[in-house]
Amino acid sequence: MAEQGEVVLLDEWLSMYGTRARIALAEKGIKYEFKEEHLDNKSPLLLQMNPIHKKIPVLIHKGKPICESLIIVQYIDEVWNHTASLLPSDPYIKAQALFWADFVNKKVGDVGGRIWAGKKEEREEAKKELIQSLKQLEETLGVKNFFGGERFDFVDIALIPFYAWFYTFEELGNFKVEAHCPKLIAWAHRCLQRPSVSKSLASEKEIYDFVVGFRQKHQLD
Amino acid sequence: MAEQGEVVLLDEWLSMYGTRARIALAEKGIKYEFKEEHLDNKSPLLLQMNPIHKKIPVLIHKGKPICESLIIVQYIDEVWNHTASLLPSDPYIKAQALFWADFVNKKVGDVGGRIWAGKKEEREEAKKELIQSLKQLEETLGVKNFFGGERFDFVDIALIPFYAWFYTFEELGNFKVEAHCPKLIAWAHRCLQRPSVSKSLASEKEIYDFVVGFRQKHQLD
Repeated sequence: MAEQGEVVLLDEWLSMYGTRARIALAEKGIKYEFKEEHLDNKSPLLLQMNPIHKKIPVLIHKGKPICESLIIVQYIDEVWNHTASLLPSDPYIKAQALFWADFVNKKVGDVGGRIWAGKKEEREEAKKELIQSLKQLEETLGVKNFFGGERFDFVDIALIPFYAWFYTFEELGNFKVEAHCPKLIAWAHRCLQRPSVSKSLASEKEIYDFVVGFRQKHQLD
Repeated sequence: MAEQGEVVLLDEWLSMYGTRARIALAEKGIKYEFKEEHLDNKSPLLLQMNPIHKKIPVLIHKGKPICESLIIVQYIDEVWNHTASLLPSDPYIKAQALFWADFVNKKVGDVGGRIWAGKKEEREEAKKELIQSLKQLEETLGVKNFFGGERFDFVDIALIPFYAWFYTFEELGNFKVEAHCPKLIAWAHRCLQRPSVSKSLASEKEIYDFVVGFRQKHQLD
């Protein structure tokens, strides 16, 4: 177990990447200090701990920084190995999990960014790509309860934070994820039954309000 | 040890990403069948084995595909664990290795792509970014022989394939990497003393000729 002040998370509550770290810490039952960062006013601590990318989330463990959300989740899994592993131990199944988590970064994260922070004219294209990506994820989920099978693990942690953003994508893109991917929505509801998830996800309303403000500020519509 | 036909690599000889897989297989002493793919004429086998990204390299082990070069290197390391590990076992040092390999993908691979396959007007900006990234890598290398210390391992495998592309970047960008990063060039020469590297890297002349042809075909100058 971690001692007071031993584990610090530099994060931003609405961030899907930060949410991954929060879920992994909650799954492992680790107490930590949450330090809220602001995109437009980064703290000296963040710049010191992640001088390369200057981005949240950063996990600081015993004074040493770990950056990049999927690497943070792997680190948490390896250091606090007293509970069930978040990554499969079989090399092939593990490679599949790493592949799909990377897919989420590239094909949901980056594409989603083009919907919420992009210009109007690129939104239609990004929306099509996002739906296509979500369909591919739904296909790989298949009839399983979670991406790895019966247990909530790595790919679930990589993807579920985006569920809180679906409402914003839907509002901006004028579509419904559930119409295209009903099994994925059912999977999200299963994930939300876990306190590690329900207590870590930002509210879709808060995300939407943030995005509306962001788009107004940057004159994006 | 792998049996005949058990390990197949779908690859393209000039690819920096494919080179990573070749080096890892050579480091582990694994015999495999090399199948050359062509960007503009992808084989049915490639489309079947990597239907999501449709990209090389793909490692096929006992009929099952593993995609994405860094995931392939990790898989090779875990399956053939009879020799020294390519990834550190300490979770923190491993997280650092994963971070820098990911940095190479984003800040050398993607940026390098904007030099060799991009338009003339974006080249100057990409060149500046590339030099900046290589300087950051040189700084993290420091006085060590290899990125992980005394042993050639994961980050070295992630980065050294790009060394074969430096000549092309230099010719197109009119600069010399060595003028900015002499220690990185010395590191590359140390890597090249390993047969796993020297036998896996494409020739800089072949790469340059390919790029010149590619740019002519796509009317990029």
